[in-house]
Parts: sequence; structure tokens; C-alpha cells
Amino acid sequence: MEVKKISELEVEDRIDGFFVIKSFEKKTAASGREYYDLDLLDDTGIINAKIWEIEKGEDISEGDFVKVRGEVISWKDVKQMKIFKARKVVESDDVKIEDYVQSAPIEAIKMYSEIMEYTEAMSSEDIKKLVETILLEKKDKLMYYPAAKGNHHAIRSGLLYHMLRMLRAGAKLLEVYDGMNSDLVYAGVILHDLAKIEEMEANELGIVSDYTKEGKLLGHIIQGIKEIDRVARENGIDGEISLVIQHMILSHHYYPEHGSPRYPMIPEGELLHYLDIIDARIYDMQKALSEVKEGEFTSRVWTLDNRQLYKVNKD
Amino acid sequence: MEVKKISELEVEDRIDGFFVIKSFEKKTAASGREYYDLDLLDDTGIINAKIWEIEKGEDISEGDFVKVRGEVISWKDVKQMKIFKARKVVESDDVKIEDYVQSAPIEAIKMYSEIMEYTEAMSSEDIKKLVETILLEKKDKLMYYPAAKGNHHAIRSGLLYHMLRMLRAGAKLLEVYDGMNSDLVYAGVILHDLAKIEEMEANELGIVSDYTKEGKLLGHIIQGIKEIDRVARENGIDGEISLVIQHMILSHHYYPEHGSPRYPMIPEGELLHYLDIIDARIYDMQKALSEVKEGEFTSRVWTLDNRQLYKVNKD
Amino acid sequence: MEVKKISELEVEDRIDGFFVIKSFEKKTAASGREYYDLDLLDDTGIINAKIWEIEKGEDISEGDFVKVRGEVISWKDVKQMKIFKARKVVESDDVKIEDYVQSAPIEAIKMYSEIMEYTEAMSSEDIKKLVETILLEKKDKLMYYPAAKGNHHAIRSGLLYHMLRMLRAGAKLLEVYDGMNSDLVYAGVILHDLAKIEEMEANELGIVSDYTKEGKLLGHIIQGIKEIDRVARENGIDGEISLVIQHMILSHHYYPEHGSPRYPMIPEGELLHYLDIIDARIYDMQKALSEVKEGEFTSRVWTLDNRQLYKVNKD
Amino acid sequence: MEVKKISELEVEDRIDGFFVIKSFEKKTAASGREYYDLDLLDDTGIINAKIWEIEKGEDISEGDFVKVRGEVISWKDVKQMKIFKARKVVESDDVKIEDYVQSAPIEAIKMYSEIMEYTEAMSSEDIKKLVETILLEKKDKLMYYPAAKGNHHAIRSGLLYHMLRMLRAGAKLLEVYDGMNSDLVYAGVILHDLAKIEEMEANELGIVSDYTKEGKLLGHIIQGIKEIDRVARENGIDGEISLVIQHMILSHHYYPEHGSPRYPMIPEGELLHYLDIIDARIYDMQKALSEVKEGEFTSRVWTLDNRQLYKVNKD
Amino acid sequence: MEVKKISELEVEDRIDGFFVIKSFEKKTAASGREYYDLDLLDDTGIINAKIWEIEKGEDISEGDFVKVRGEVISWKDVKQMKIFKARKVVESDDVKIEDYVQSAPIEAIKMYSEIMEYTEAMSSEDIKKLVETILLEKKDKLMYYPAAKGNHHAIRSGLLYHMLRMLRAGAKLLEVYDGMNSDLVYAGVILHDLAKIEEMEANELGIVSDYTKEGKLLGHIIQGIKEIDRVARENGIDGEISLVIQHMILSHHYYPEHGSPRYPMIPEGELLHYLDIIDARIYDMQKALSEVKEGEFTSRVWTLDNRQLYKVNKD
Amino acid sequence: MEVKKISELEVEDRIDGFFVIKSFEKKTAASGREYYDLDLLDDTGIINAKIWEIEKGEDISEGDFVKVRGEVISWKDVKQMKIFKARKVVESDDVKIEDYVQSAPIEAIKMYSEIMEYTEAMSSEDIKKLVETILLEKKDKLMYYPAAKGNHHAIRSGLLYHMLRMLRAGAKLLEVYDGMNSDLVYAGVILHDLAKIEEMEANELGIVSDYTKEGKLLGHIIQGIKEIDRVARENGIDGEISLVIQHMILSHHYYPEHGSPRYPMIPEGELLHYLDIIDARIYDMQKALSEVKEGEFTSRVWTLDNRQLYKVNKD
Repeated sequence: MEVKKISELEVEDRIDGFFVIKSFEKKTAASGREYYDLDLLDDTGIINAKIWEIEKGEDISEGDFVKVRGEVISWKDVKQMKIFKARKVVESDDVKIEDYVQSAPIEAIKMYSEIMEYTEAMSSEDIKKLVETILLEKKDKLMYYPAAKGNHHAIRSGLLYHMLRMLRAGAKLLEVYDGMNSDLVYAGVILHDLAKIEEMEANELGIVSDYTKEGKLLGHIIQGIKEIDRVARENGIDGEISLVIQHMILSHHYYPEHGSPRYPMIPEGELLHYLDIIDARIYDMQKALSEVKEGEFTSRVWTLDNRQLYKVNKD
Repeated sequence: MEVKKISELEVEDRIDGFFVIKSFEKKTAASGREYYDLDLLDDTGIINAKIWEIEKGEDISEGDFVKVRGEVISWKDVKQMKIFKARKVVESDDVKIEDYVQSAPIEAIKMYSEIMEYTEAMSSEDIKKLVETILLEKKDKLMYYPAAKGNHHAIRSGLLYHMLRMLRAGAKLLEVYDGMNSDLVYAGVILHDLAKIEEMEANELGIVSDYTKEGKLLGHIIQGIKEIDRVARENGIDGEISLVIQHMILSHHYYPEHGSPRYPMIPEGELLHYLDIIDARIYDMQKALSEVKEGEFTSRVWTLDNRQLYKVNKD
Repeated sequence: MEVKKISELEVEDRIDGFFVIKSFEKKTAASGREYYDLDLLDDTGIINAKIWEIEKGEDISEGDFVKVRGEVISWKDVKQMKIFKARKVVESDDVKIEDYVQSAPIEAIKMYSEIMEYTEAMSSEDIKKLVETILLEKKDKLMYYPAAKGNHHAIRSGLLYHMLRMLRAGAKLLEVYDGMNSDLVYAGVILHDLAKIEEMEANELGIVSDYTKEGKLLGHIIQGIKEIDRVARENGIDGEISLVIQHMILSHHYYPEHGSPRYPMIPEGELLHYLDIIDARIYDMQKALSEVKEGEFTSRVWTLDNRQLYKVNKD
Repeated sequence: MEVKKISELEVEDRIDGFFVIKSFEKKTAASGREYYDLDLLDDTGIINAKIWEIEKGEDISEGDFVKVRGEVISWKDVKQMKIFKARKVVESDDVKIEDYVQSAPIEAIKMYSEIMEYTEAMSSEDIKKLVETILLEKKDKLMYYPAAKGNHHAIRSGLLYHMLRMLRAGAKLLEVYDGMNSDLVYAGVILHDLAKIEEMEANELGIVSDYTKEGKLLGHIIQGIKEIDRVARENGIDGEISLVIQHMILSHHYYPEHGSPRYPMIPEGELLHYLDIIDARIYDMQKALSEVKEGEFTSRVWTLDNRQLYKVNKD
Repeated sequence: MEVKKISELEVEDRIDGFFVIKSFEKKTAASGREYYDLDLLDDTGIINAKIWEIEKGEDISEGDFVKVRGEVISWKDVKQMKIFKARKVVESDDVKIEDYVQSAPIEAIKMYSEIMEYTEAMSSEDIKKLVETILLEKKDKLMYYPAAKGNHHAIRSGLLYHMLRMLRAGAKLLEVYDGMNSDLVYAGVILHDLAKIEEMEANELGIVSDYTKEGKLLGHIIQGIKEIDRVARENGIDGEISLVIQHMILSHHYYPEHGSPRYPMIPEGELLHYLDIIDARIYDMQKALSEVKEGEFTSRVWTLDNRQLYKVNKD
Repeated sequence: MEVKKISELEVEDRIDGFFVIKSFEKKTAASGREYYDLDLLDDTGIINAKIWEIEKGEDISEGDFVKVRGEVISWKDVKQMKIFKARKVVESDDVKIEDYVQSAPIEAIKMYSEIMEYTEAMSSEDIKKLVETILLEKKDKLMYYPAAKGNHHAIRSGLLYHMLRMLRAGAKLLEVYDGMNSDLVYAGVILHDLAKIEEMEANELGIVSDYTKEGKLLGHIIQGIKEIDRVARENGIDGEISLVIQHMILSHHYYPEHGSPRYPMIPEGELLHYLDIIDARIYDMQKALSEVKEGEFTSRVWTLDNRQLYKVNKD
């Protein structure tokens, strides 16, 4: 049996493969027969699968990293896998889950360290204390959290990657635009989305199952402000600093209809907004363009105001 | 000399009167001569005044409650007062400031007590504790704070009056609409605008000079949520209760462009929004209509979407 | 055979049941064979059904109240009924249609009487005359008309129920907000939606099949105004009263994009708008929340601006 | 003394002239001295004037057609007239008011006749009857009513002129677009704005002083529909015809925020809307452009979405 | 075998017919078997078809005009054609493609000539030269281009038909509205949509396959302006004329969100906009209404702001 | 006599000074006496002035750089200058105009050279040729043109300064975001606003008097596209490059209501938009904040969506 990734599968392939179970549900056919309906994914794509012999699905469930033997068929012109055998991955399989889910291109711990370096270099002790405290509290989940449910950076460790690229871009722009308070810019970048960890439920694969109750009733902007307020009080942070950083978090989505009841009233908040949106947009655009050839247009991209994108012909 | 209120003044009147100084500024005439330019108010209106002999203005300043002797003249078809003498009110004048500023029609301490009765009657100990704690913290300023800078209930103790009428109306509607959690409705009503005390600077006359720094950078909705969060943590209030009440505060302006990033997701929050807006609108409408006769229209009212209002002819 | 309601049906049940035929259509299968496709409903829900032997569907049609024998199967994971026999309900079945369609929780004639009591108690003879005349003209259809095609109070006698709850809520609020003309408030409440009877076609089960030609070309606001104008002329009603009530009807949807070319210009019209929307919103919210457990969110509700609702956890 | 029109007046001119008094108000100077402040107009423009000797203003009032003797001065760089004598025009002055107010370029009675000809030529007896009846009812006021308070065709007999140009343009377009019901188009054109006569108070000079109570509370669209409904009932007009014409009136402003709760649902209504807007826009544009030279831009025109217009250079 | 058009086909018909292949795609069934999936159209409608024996589809492809033998079946209640034989039309079939695609009701060459006559009659030599040059450059494609991909005049030679009706309507309105520059009006009408030829790919049947790269990145308004600019430079056209016509093209969609960054600033541009929209709207309305009976409503029409239309009952 | 700049002037100062005449108009006082009314500016501010002896204003006019002797008075609490003598600056005054108008902080020719260096370093010969050609054509006016009439960078050489800062910021961001075509980014930055030179009339002091006719009828986006199209044709530039750069110019304002009928469809266009807006916003924010102290808010800034800005308190 061959070992193939999802993007390589062809109809009539009979393969062994390693996949993550994105969804797993028992269903009943019109005939009354029960079966399992699954979505399998790896870092190259997603495929629907069925287990028709119900007893063969008993050892696995949603979120598992599994080894599967099956055959690829075509159902209504879409590929589907008929599973013969499936079990959880064991150590002797000698495969790492990181190689099977879409992840940030830099190792999480390295990104975290680089972010910590930005923090260490801050000149305001109060800002440094505030940011460090929160970064430490969130360290474990930061290792794998994505930055969104279905938009930009919806990949394992995507949140760290989003923060890091914004920090790097911010540092560059601060070389051109002087007169800014770099501590505020970096603090805003690091803290602006951290409450997404409380807003969304994500597993260690970086896959979001849903928004949390707090996420739905308040949202990450309000949750982030409350957290900064609490940590600042507990650590005796200067009130002006705490207030201004809360304002930056509050205003970073810019428009009321995007969740910000205030526009940025300081230049550092204005810059935070643009660093955020540039990073998200370029990520989404480059991702969409990676799927077409030069001289072609992509399909409409929902997260980019439903635009089609064009890949410039370089010849 | 007659003692008259502002609405009774006629050109050529020479009067003694008691007024509050709303604004007070030294200016220079084209001739180079210095004088004081004042706005005086009482509970019947407002009038501009001048003190041409500069030394006669030395004992008074903005916010003072003063006795004034002067003459009413007409300047560009508008009444104006020329002040001959002015001094702060003294005890022997035997006048009470409450009679000279627009105030809620019920005494502040009585309103506060009635609000406390609603609180005492709550069945959830946690909600009761949360609301009582905050009411006690704010008691002093609540006595005189208005509900707004220039809109509805912009009068002394207007905030208490707004809360009280909403509580009464809420209690009535709960008799018709069962299946609601009355504790949540009352808590939402009492807490929804309390952070206006931190959002605006007001003096003991109930006159707002400006928004505070926190008010401009965050606003009373965010400030209120943070306060509830802090008091709930300090008093061990149940997390679900704290969360849901924060959500009610967050959503009570309903529309993102009015400052609410979430719509109400519970019926009690929906009701809170409508109690708030009904109370504000009826106040503003009845105030505007009090100035016209039956069968007439008011001027356009800015706080009512620039509408003209009509006073129905009852004959 | 068991007798079950729709919400109790399980796959493989063989049952007898009483249902209303919501839709009834002859179709042709790919094989060329004709069959009937039906939607059946009772007060607990709705289920699709098929009659495969065409001659067995000949005695029934859309809108009928029928007795059915059949078996519940699963088709694409959705329950469906295969009908063996179906006939119209006869007297000897001893079932009342009211028990099989969703209806207002109060008997129609009692609601109508209570509304008439509000009318009798009016102090203005002209307003009383106007309202009574129209109430009498519409009495028959009012008994069963719903308040909407697919939104709030889309149930048998829903229109009466909507009017009655608004009257009760209005009476309560008038105890808090004095200075209002209660006759106008009650007249506005009673008349505001009465032209829905001409706007929509509904059968005696309270089920709307479509909007009428007049409803589509003019709508119930314009139709209601014309009716008030006509009845007022025919009965010599005072012009000011007729005008003001027409204005209340015209403005009760508040926003131009919701069908009101004028905002309310009198406080009674403002109150009418809020009574209307509170009643509709609380109805829709409580209905949606009745389908989830404490601590859970509903699906997005289209009639509530696509919001999810949350059922507070009371433990 | 020279006789001049307003557009010809120069500072230091001493003139006799004939004017209409647009506004007339007694005021008090800072000195306490009373005087009259007037706006005078003729068909060429408007000028502010003062009567400093109060007894010389006693025989005239707002709306009068007067003979005036005075001198033109410059006040803050704006021309103003100092009036020495003023009296109402008498027969021996041998001047016609029509020559002193801006009027439609065609005589009112001729326009009315041409409109009647369109009506006579209709093939549907019901539509003809409906239109004729209303035209006859309104004949007197139609002679002088303007089409608006301050927008397009705000001139004496402007309403007739607007109707007539729309009829002529409609007739032309019906030659290109066949398959339309010309009776409906003409009826819509004639009736669409007729209730402006009830919406606005205008004097016989075609000058609007204000909107009426009915105009403010309902507006000419609703008033027009009610009138058509009443006349149709009284004259036994076919219901379909009455309904469709009411729909045309209801939808002729097209957008809800412009007062139309329905979009046109028939082609004749669609055409009515465009005939209306073309006639208004071209009138406003040509009026604004008449005040500038070729190659120049006008100031921003409020009634044209605040656009500047350009006069093409034809050389 | 009968010869039928698509609108006449019934299930179980076995027919010969002439159709245009709108789409043509090889697919694979679940069984692994390959087949062709086609959409066939003629001037009466569209039908899906299958060629199950793959070798029988080898001589035809998308866009071909073909003779087909097949049988009509019903699949999920929708008609479908099973094709037995298909080949390209040959001369001996003696059929003209014009009779099998929806086309403008006037012959293309006649429309082109009439448009040229309007051009010849212009009094400005510069405008005439500009318009003629572009009309000649585009003549070949103008013969068959539609005016849109899926909206108004999406038929063979629809662009010419749209231009011609606008010219005729414009000429009529110029008889009523004097003071306009007719050369500019006609030039604007002729040039306003001509760059649609570069914006969309259409075949000689007037069927648009897609927008072009230039169409997506710039759009026909910008492309048209550039073309006018180039032709004006090459032909020494007066700068004022070129500028003003470019402005007319730029502003003819009126609203920024419809693609016009400027509102019309000259009356001729204003008129151009309304001529364009009237022609498009009446076309779409009459087309939609042609499918229903008197007294009925159409379905919602997407290109008409999702309105339903009503066909007036003339009896 | 002292020599002072405008920001240093005090009432009663008698000074000599060097100023630019921003506006210059002959007026007539109520008395009939003629005088000159001027606005004078230097790099520190603006002051109104009068020349009461008309013959003393004969040698100067709008736009002149002048030496003035006068006295500062107070008129309605605003400073004003009474001019005794005024003449054009002569060589022997030994003052440079650059020191008396607000200018970019870098010398124009140096900025131009740095921009040229970015151009020289491009790898695509076609893009380089296109950009160089246009830069050379515009060189003279680029030296002094501001970037706007009244918004960001409305200073002498402001356009060059805006381009240069965007180039520098773009170069920085390209270090973080790889996979972008830097030639396109730089070309977009250099060309995006160059047609402002044709859109606005500005004198050599960088002061804009008005928009040009072309600016009003088309605007700098359309003008820029036409220019790129022309230069590309004349220089045989590759069509794909010309098209893509035109698309970048077209979309750089992002929103239709800001003048862009297309959103950016390539990442380089997206980046261009954000480089543009970041540079403008930070400029406007820092300018507004330079006028207040730490801990204070600015007034509302019209060009920043009417926001107040806050200057963080750093102590």
C-alpha cells in the first residue's frame, strides 16, 4: 500500500495514510443501516470518508490523529474515501502530528521567544511588566492557538505567527515614523488578540470547534480589556498606561460595525490597526493566489470583501 | 428692586436676582478695555451678562451661586444683562440652590431609597450583593449627577430619576411579560448607566463641564463592564451572573454605531434597551412639547433625530 | 395503532394521527410514476409525507384537517411519513381542530371582549366610535387571523393576542408616564395592524398562504390609513383625531426602510412603536429559547437580526 | 426717480420700484428704537430693506405688492435698501403682479387646458373620470401653486409647469417604448404631486410660507392616495384602476428614505418616477447654470446632492 | 421525428432539434463511467442534456450550433434530454443561427446605420469625428455584442439595440427640453457602453463567457475613457469636447458604488444617465412581465432590486 | 521696529515683518470708503490685515512675498494687523521665501534624487522606463507641489515628501512580507498621486488656489490612469505591466465612495493603499497633537473622521 497525502489522492487509489479526524458522526442510511461519516484532514487538504462496517469505527473519535487504510472512490464527481481499517496513531508509526496539520512556518517556541525579546527590550517597566505577565499566563495555549476560526491565520500557532509578523513590521515602520512610543506599539500588537484564547475553543491541533460563551456574549476585545484591567490592578501598573493600552485594544478594529466603539485617538493605536489589517490581508491574499497560475483570477474570496484576486503574469 | 426669574425678565427691567454662573470669562473689547462675559442660569432659563467694571467681578467665578443686581437691555434683538453688583449667596439670603437649578421632580434621597428597595427585594443573593455594592460606592455622586451632558435628563439628579422611572416601568411590564428574570432586569436598569459618573465631570448642580479622559478613551459602557467585573471578582459573585449582566450593559445601546458591539442575546437585555430608550424619548418629547401650544409644532429637536413634534389639539 | 403528535414521532413508528395539510402537490418520479407530496402539521411541528398510491390521495387537499395512517421512515437523515390511508376528519372522530394548530394561549372571543372593554372605557366619544366601528367590521376574521406570515405571532388568533398584550403593556406604562393621551395610545394599538387582514390571505387555521394584491402594491400601513380615513368621514369623526391616528399608523414602523415615511411626532405614537416592537421581540425570543436548554445558544434567528440567543443558566 | 428691478440696483441709487414683501417684521435696535425689517422681491431677485421711521410702515404688511421709494446703500458689503416711502400698489400704477414674481414661462390657463386635453384623450373612461374630477376640484389653486417650497419649480404656477413638461416628455417616450398603458402614465403624471396643494400653504404669488399640519404629519404622497381613494369610491371607479394608480403615487419617490414605502411594480410607475426626476433635475441644473459663464463652475447646489455644475465652453 | 423548440418539449418526446451548445463538459459518474454534460439553448429557453456514449460527443464542443436527436426525460421533476446523436449544423440543414438565439428585434446592420445617421447629423465636426472613428473601429463586434452578461439586453446585438433605443428616446426628450447640446447627448449615448466590447468576451451568438482581464481590473467605464482620450489625441479633437465626453462616460452610472466616482456635472450627462437606466429598466420589466398573466405577480427579479412586478388587469 | 513671526505677535506690537499674501481683496466699508482686506501667512500661522489708505496697497497683490510695517490690534477678540506700509521683498532684504512658508522637512531636490534612486534600482526595464518618463515630465512642478488642498501634507513640496516616506515605509515592509513584486510597489507609490499636479492649481509656495477643471470633472485617479496609458503606449511598455499599474492607481483609494471603483485585486495594490493611508494619518495626527500638551485632547479633526486625539502623558 502506498502512503499518500490528501492532495495526491486519485480515484481508485488504495492507500494507507495518516490523518486528523475533523468531524465524526454516526448516521443512518435510508436502508436503516448505520455507518460513520467522517471528514479527514492533513496539511494538504480535506476529504470526506465513510466507515460502512460500524464496528470498525469504534476505537476512534473526533480530533484523533489516526492511521487509515482505504480506497478512494468518486461520488457525484467528488472524491471520497471508503475506509477499511482505522486506528489511532501509535509511537511505532513514527509520525509527528505537526507534519499533518497546517501550521505556522516557524516553530512556536521560537516565535514565542522572539516576542519575549521585543518585550524585554521595552523601556517602560510598567508596560513590560503588564505584557510579560499576560504572555506568561497564556503561554501554554499560545503554542497552538490559531488566530481565527475560519479567516486569516486559521492554522496551528497562527496567533503567534500573526503577532510576530506584526511586531516585525511594526519595528520596521517605527524606523520611518519617528515620534511614536514603540513600547505602546509593541504592547498593543502583543495584547490585541490575546483574548482570542478565551473567545474560541481550539484543540491542540489549532482547530477551532466553536466560540465560547464569553466569546459570544462579550467578544475578545472586551475580554482583553478586562484582562488588562485586572492584571494592571494586581501589579500596580500606572493608570495612564493601562488606560491607553485598553483604548488601543478597544479601537483596533476601527469601525463600530466591526466591534470597535471608539476610533483610535493616539497614533500608536492607528498604527496598530493598520499593522493588524495589513498582516491579515496579505496572508489571505497570498494564500488565495497560491492556488492559481499567473495570468489567472482566483474565485471570489469571502474574507476579502468577496473580491477576486489576480496573479500578475511575470513573463 | 424686583426679584425675578430669567423667563420673566423684560428689556429695561432693573432687578435683583439669584443665579448660577454657568460660564465666566475675562475678555478684551476692541477698545482694549477688559470686561467679564458671563452666562447666568436658573431653573427657568439662561441669559448672557456683562460686567463692564472689572473690579466688580472679582469675588465670583464659574459655578458660583450668586446674587446679582443689574438691568436688562436688548442687544441685536436678544436680551442681555448689564451687571451693577454681584456677590456669592450668603446664608442670610435664605435661598436654596435646589430652587435655582433644574432638578428631578423627586428628592434625590427618596429616589435612592426606592431604588434600594428594588434591590433588597431581589431573590438572587449574588445579584443583590453586586448591585448593592456598586450603589453604595456611588451614593454620593448619584445624589446630583445628571444622566447626560446635553440630552435627556440633563438635570440635577437626572441619573437617579432616569433609573427610577425605568425600574417602575420595568416592574409594570414584568406583570405582562412573564417568564423573565426580574432580578436581571432590575440589575441591568440600575447598573446600565452608572459609569456615567466616571464618564462625565459634573458639579453638584448637575451641570456637566466635559467628558473625562476615561470617558473619551473608553466610554461608560466599557467602564461599567470593568467595574462590574472587578466588584464581582472581589465579592465572589457567580461567574454566569457577572457575565450575563456585563453582556446586558454591553448591548444596551443596541446598535454598533451607538456603542454596542453586541445585540442583546437574552430577553432581559432586550427589555433593558427598550426601557432605556422609552424613558429618554418620552422625557425629551414632553420637554420639547412643554414649550409650544396645542395645535403647534416644536422646532426640530436634535436629540430626536431632528424631528419636529406636534402638540395635539384637544378641543 | 398508536395516536401520536408530530414531535413524538420516531423512525419505524406505525401510527394513526390527526394533521392539517399545509401543502399538497402531485409530482412525478424519475420513473414516471405519479405520487402526492404533502407537508403535514399539528401544534407540535411539521413533517413531510408521501402518498405513493395515487388513488389514496383523491379525497383530500390543501388546508384539510385529516386522519392519516402511516409509517415513519428516515430519508437522508430526516424523518418522513409514508401514508397508507388518509381521509378528512369526521364528527365521530371527536377531535377539535383548535387542538391541532398553534394558537394564541387565550380564547379568541375572550381576547376580543377584553379589547372591547378598553374601547368602551375611552373618554373621547369620537375615538371610541372610530375604533368600535372598525373592530366590529373586522370581528369575524379577527377571530383567527395571525399577526404575520412567518414572523412573530404567526399563529391562529395571533393578531388578537398581539393587540391584547400591547394594550395591557400600554396600560401599565401609562401608570408610570403621565401626561399622555390614553385614548390615542389604545386606539393606535388596536388599529395599527388591523389592515393585516386585508394585506394577507389567511385561512381559518391562521395559516397565511400569501400576501394579497393590495398588500403587495400598498401594504397594511397605507390600507389602514385609508380605512380610518373612510370610517372617520362616514361617521363624522373630528378631523384632528382622524389625522393624528392616521399619523400614528403611518409612523409605527419608525424607519423609512421598514415602511414608515414619517417618524412619530407625538409621544403616543412613539410609545405605540415601542409597545409593538417589545411585544414582537419578546414573543420571538421566548419562542426561540423554548427550544434550547439552559446554558445553550439557539441557532441564528432570522427575525431577530440573525442573532443567536442565550438561555441563562439559573443554577 | 428711476424705476429699476432688483438685479439692476447699484449702491447710491435713489429709486422708485415695485416689489412683493416676502417678510415683514418689527424689530428693536440696541438703542431701543423700533424699525421695520423687510425682504423685498421681484422676478429678478431679493433685497433686504429697512424702514427707520416706524410710522411709514403702517399701511403695508407681508405678502403685499407695494410701490417703494428708497436709496440703495452698502452694509457689510451687501446691498440694502433704506425706504423713504412705501404704499400698496393701486390701479393707477398700471403694473401687473405677474410681472413682478417669478412665474412659469407659459400662462397658467393655457397649461391647464393642455393638461385637460391629455385627459380628454384617454381611452379608459374610469381613468378619465378620476383625473378630471380631481383636476376640477383643484383648478383654482392650481393656477398659482408652485411645485415646491425651495427646490425645483418653486415659482408661481410651477406645479402646472412641472406637470405639463412631464406630460409632454411622457408622450414622447411612449412613442419609443410601446407596450405601455398611456392612460396610466398620464394619470400618474397629473396626480402624482397634486396633493402638494394640501401639503403646503402658498399665497397667490406662488410663495410657500410653510407646510400644513397635514403635510407634516402625513405628506403629499399619503394625502394624494387618500384623495384618489375617496374620489374613486364616490365615482364608482373600477377598483383595479384605483389601486394601481394609488400604487403609482405611493412609489413615485422610489426610495423609502425619500418617502416611498414601495418601489414601482409596474413599468408605468417606473416611468413616472423617471419623468418626475428628469424634469426636476434639468430645471434645477439649467437654473443654476444660468448664473455662470461658459467654462465656469457653479457653487455647490444643495438640491443636486451638493454638486457643482459646469457650463461647457462652446467656442 | 418531430422538430421542436425547447419551450415546446414534453417528457417522453423523441425529437430532432437545432440548438446552440452553451456549456459542454466531460464528467465521471460514481461508477467511473465518463459522459458529456451539456446545456443546450435556443431562442425559447435552455435544457440540460447528457451524452452517455462518450464517442458520440466527439465532433462537437462549446459554442457550436448543432443538430441533435434525443429523448426528453424527467429527472427530479426537471426535464432533461438524453442525446442519441449530435453533429454540427451543415449547409444542407438550411437553418439560420439567427433563428436559434435570442436577438434584438431589429437587424444589426439597420441599427448600425440608424446610429450612423444620428452621427452624421451632428453639428460639431469634432464630436462627429470622434464618434465616427470609434464606431468604425468597433463595427464588426458591434454586430453581435450583447449589452450585458446577465442583465438587460443580454441578447445578440443587444448593445446596438440599447444604444438605438436610447438615441431615439433622447431625440424625443430633446424636443421637450431645449437648451441642451444634442451633439453631446448623442455622443454620450453612443459611447457610454462601447467599451463593453473590451470588458466582456462574447461569441458571435451574443453569449458572454466571462469578463476579460481588463474588464475585471479596470471596467468598461475606465476603458471607454482611455479609448476616447486616445482617439481624441490621434485625431486632434478639441480638448474641451474630449474632456466633457469623458466626464459623461465617467459619471453615467451616477453612484460611486455603481462605478461612477463623479456625479454628472452637466445636464447632458444627467440626461444620459436617465436614458440609460430607463431603457434598461423597461427592458427588464417588460421581459419579466411577458412571463405572467394579467392580474398576477412575477417572481422576484434580481436585476430590479429584487422586486416582484405586477401585470395590470385590463378588463 | 521689531521683526516677528506671526505666532509671536501680541496686541499693540508695532512691527516690521515678512509675509506671503494668501488673499488680497478690495472692499467697501459701510461708509463707502474703500480699503484692502488681506490674509498674511508665514510658516508659523496666518493673520488678517487691513490697508485703510488705499494708495498704500497699490504695489502688491495675491501671492506676493512682502515686507510689511504695521500694528497689531484686537478686533472682536481676534488679532488683526493695521498696515502702514507694504512692498514686495527685494534682494537687499536678504530673506528666503522658503523660510516663510511651511515646507517639507527635507530639501525638494534631495527627495527627488532619493525617489530616482528607488527607480534606478528596479529590475523590470519596462516599469523603470514608465516611472522615469513620468517623473521627468513632472520634475519642475514636483519641486513645490503640496499633496493636498487642505488635508495631509498641504505644505510646499508635500507631494514629494508623501511619496518619499511611503517609499521608505514600503521598502521596510517588503523586508517582512516576501513574495511581493517590489517594482510594482514602488511604481504604485511613485505614480499614485502624481496627477494631483494636474488636478490642483498650486503656486510655487505650495499653496493650492483651487481644483482645475480636469480635476473637478475627472479627478487625479482617472487623470493618472490616462497618463500612464499614454506614456506606456508611447514607450512600448508591456501591456500587462501598464494594465496592472493602472489597476493599482484605480484602486488605491479602496472604497467606491472615496473614488475607487475597484478594490485592489493584487497584494501590491493592497499594500499601496495602506502605505498611503498610514502616511497621511500619521502626518495629520502628529500635526494635530503638536498643538496640545501631554494629557490633553485636541479639538475634533475633520480630516480624521472628526475624532479628537489624545496626547499620552509620559510622566
